[in-house]
Amino acid sequence: MTNDAAYEELISRLKRVHVLGTVNSLLGWDEQVNLPPDSADLRAEQLALLAELQHAAASDPRVGELLTLLEGRPGEPAADQKVVLKYGRRDYDRVVKLPPDFVSEKARHSSKAFHAWAECRGRADFAGFAPFIQRHIELAKQEAGYLGYAAAPYDYMIDRNDPGMTAEAVGALFAELKKELVPLMREIVGSRVKARPGVFHGFPVEQQRTFLHAVTERIGFNYRRGRIDVSLHPFCDGSGADLRMTTHFDEHNPLNSLFSAIHETGHGLYEQGIPIERQGTPLGQPVGMAVHESQSRLWENQVARSRAFWRFFEPRFRETFSAQLGAVSSDELYLAVNAVRPTLIRVDADEVTYNLHIILRFEIEKQLFAGTLAVADLPAAWNALAQELLGLTPPNDREGVLQDVHWSGGMFGYFPSYCLGNMMAAQFWYKAQGDLPGLDDDFAKGDFSRLLGWLRRNIHEQGRRYDTRELVRAVTGEALSPKHLLRYLRERYLPLYRG
Amino acid sequence: MTNDAAYEELISRLKRVHVLGTVNSLLGWDEQVNLPPDSADLRAEQLALLAELQHAAASDPRVGELLTLLEGRPGEPAADQKVVLKYGRRDYDRVVKLPPDFVSEKARHSSKAFHAWAECRGRADFAGFAPFIQRHIELAKQEAGYLGYAAAPYDYMIDRNDPGMTAEAVGALFAELKKELVPLMREIVGSRVKARPGVFHGFPVEQQRTFLHAVTERIGFNYRRGRIDVSLHPFCDGSGADLRMTTHFDEHNPLNSLFSAIHETGHGLYEQGIPIERQGTPLGQPVGMAVHESQSRLWENQVARSRAFWRFFEPRFRETFSAQLGAVSSDELYLAVNAVRPTLIRVDADEVTYNLHIILRFEIEKQLFAGTLAVADLPAAWNALAQELLGLTPPNDREGVLQDVHWSGGMFGYFPSYCLGNMMAAQFWYKAQGDLPGLDDDFAKGDFSRLLGWLRRNIHEQGRRYDTRELVRAVTGEALSPKHLLRYLRERYLPLYRG
Repeated sequence: MTNDAAYEELISRLKRVHVLGTVNSLLGWDEQVNLPPDSADLRAEQLALLAELQHAAASDPRVGELLTLLEGRPGEPAADQKVVLKYGRRDYDRVVKLPPDFVSEKARHSSKAFHAWAECRGRADFAGFAPFIQRHIELAKQEAGYLGYAAAPYDYMIDRNDPGMTAEAVGALFAELKKELVPLMREIVGSRVKARPGVFHGFPVEQQRTFLHAVTERIGFNYRRGRIDVSLHPFCDGSGADLRMTTHFDEHNPLNSLFSAIHETGHGLYEQGIPIERQGTPLGQPVGMAVHESQSRLWENQVARSRAFWRFFEPRFRETFSAQLGAVSSDELYLAVNAVRPTLIRVDADEVTYNLHIILRFEIEKQLFAGTLAVADLPAAWNALAQELLGLTPPNDREGVLQDVHWSGGMFGYFPSYCLGNMMAAQFWYKAQGDLPGLDDDFAKGDFSRLLGWLRRNIHEQGRRYDTRELVRAVTGEALSPKHLLRYLRERYLPLYRG
Repeated sequence: MTNDAAYEELISRLKRVHVLGTVNSLLGWDEQVNLPPDSADLRAEQLALLAELQHAAASDPRVGELLTLLEGRPGEPAADQKVVLKYGRRDYDRVVKLPPDFVSEKARHSSKAFHAWAECRGRADFAGFAPFIQRHIELAKQEAGYLGYAAAPYDYMIDRNDPGMTAEAVGALFAELKKELVPLMREIVGSRVKARPGVFHGFPVEQQRTFLHAVTERIGFNYRRGRIDVSLHPFCDGSGADLRMTTHFDEHNPLNSLFSAIHETGHGLYEQGIPIERQGTPLGQPVGMAVHESQSRLWENQVARSRAFWRFFEPRFRETFSAQLGAVSSDELYLAVNAVRPTLIRVDADEVTYNLHIILRFEIEKQLFAGTLAVADLPAAWNALAQELLGLTPPNDREGVLQDVHWSGGMFGYFPSYCLGNMMAAQFWYKAQGDLPGLDDDFAKGDFSRLLGWLRRNIHEQGRRYDTRELVRAVTGEALSPKHLLRYLRERYLPLYRG
């Protein structure tokens, strides 16, 4: 077998795993969007069987043989092949180095922990949930050990989501951000200027749907390779070849579904920007969670909360909802789009305070993994950090340490990606503005194509050619830094809230 | 390994094949209902991969070993096990006895033939399509040979759809039916009484949807384990655990979507009537196409075209569409529900003439397989039979021999099931009326539960315990016969059309 034939076989096997993954995605999407209420048992069986088949394809010994064969080839491989081998190896090892018994134990524990979390959260009972977190930390450490990270399990959890990142690097970035963000947030929150609550009422769902569709299509979402539907919690799934987004409508909060749809569109544009023929190989896969989030946040925040964006869309928004917006001035609308108000709940947070929610969770996870914080002491640590960072103390654990689903699934090291994504979004944003003068004028004319083209060339089409930090450096010419996010937040919010 | 353990393993492997089949179904449903227009390539890859995995699971040598082990056990197996072994063997042989090369050649030819059919049909060019039929007949004979039917390939094609049926048995039933049906049809068509065309206009789709949902739910469809959506061609797919039906709305033809939805509901009720825990094994599978069709037709025709049914639903129909039905009398509505008019196109046919379309196709298939009709002579044979049976001659082959998609997929022996289903529906219907006096009164009160319970006990819950003809005998105490269908058509149509 020539090396090329081996490489082609490897690519074809990786694509096969990917196609199985897309079937799994579709089943998951359908479960949230269409599944009849009593059909959940069959869906669970289908998902379990698909997961088993995907695992079998990903861990096929032939994949390992091909990797070893290609890795052992003398000389430096071509650039593309290097990327495929690096992540092919990484993914393969992560599948085959975990013993099947361990994988099923973790799955069983996650299922139990999820139900325990839902129940304990309902009655704000942290003590009932604590043993499940404890066990998940043990399992995470065990998993890190299998993958050669016994000495640095939290690094493993972070790298799993964002290749190339470490706990130390995240810690340094967050410390720098926190130092300036806390006073900035206090300045904004202390302003006499406030978004007026409850200005929106009675926005019919059908018109919201039409407007949202027009906005996301205008931004660049390709509805010939994707769709948007309704589910309880908005999400984006599938691949660029068939992208399924969802949103959730509230008649009294039209900005919520609009911005969540723009957020999901940002994720969708990343996937749709990956050339179809590369999908399923590392050359056609997103780098990781943080880069993905940088795309959703850039469109949601830097673009869609800007004056220029609303210069184009405000007249259209008013035309669609003339009855509902008659008494709302332009300034009020723009302030509602950029409302800042600390809240206890992460998913309700604005883009200024959101980062503080993440810093809080990172501090806690780091200490949990370092063994300097006991699980039993989690609520106290949480509440102290909430007071320090947000100026708020949860009245109970439901609105504090029990609010997020992530830990019930052992998803440690996942929260940091959200804030890293925000940093990257701002850093990419300033670089794009430098490269593309007059972007604001484009937006004011409803033209987002130059920005999208720039993101495609620089980020989407790169696949996993660079790891998380390499990509930022390759695109912007400098290391990932929170200073761009801080600059952006100052430029956007201080003029507005200085009144 | 004890025999029970072997049996359990066999059951679990059969269920695995079934679950893969349900995933395939969902992908197919989604393709018709949701798929974005440019996502078809990925869907084709997903379907091909799932088909490959399903084939691998169904042809796993371990299934063969288990069957041989259980078949070789001394003494008579228990009744349930006997059914499982009979159809387990049948399905396994049909998968493993076909060489993989043959299977892919047939798939390739079907794909080419489908596109050729669509093109040739468009320009009414039979000569262009003829070689594809010719090749499909050769492939069908080859397939029959692999399965031990070299001497009777058309029997194989029929038995494949309706276990236990033969070409000879179908031929005898159809000859008996034809003898009386042709004069009966002429009598009805010759009547001065005619349904007035074009009485329905402007029925809003949303209200049609609501009414249709209420009707199908009232009949017994369980929307907690199923749903109805819109697709170009109505169909019913999935399993009783998650049943997906579709319909297609026309503002000027509300009866069309209503009756097609009731038809699909009949299919759905059969699937939903199979106990969940048996699904995926021969004890929980439909007998075949004809029995399936008997269920859809019984609800669509015997039930939903009856006076008693409309006694309950007419007031509700008028309430929903008062503006549209103001000028339509009760008699006109009932005549529209039971309109009879010969047409060249099978899918547009009423329940009287429909059977003649099937007899035509059966006569032709039988002669094609016997070698007494050359493919080149097909159009002439078709047109002669259309004139003899329907009194109509197609002006071109698009409205004649090229109208159906079936032959482009090599689906011979499939048409007869439609007419056998009509015969069975009438035979079951009279038996149910005998067993359940006062059914009409039930219907007039909107109560369909006694009939549904009877169908569940006698048919749905039986799975494949009986083959096609055995089931009819077990349920009705006599052999399958067209006399019940003829009686039903006379009783329903003669009083109406004698005016």
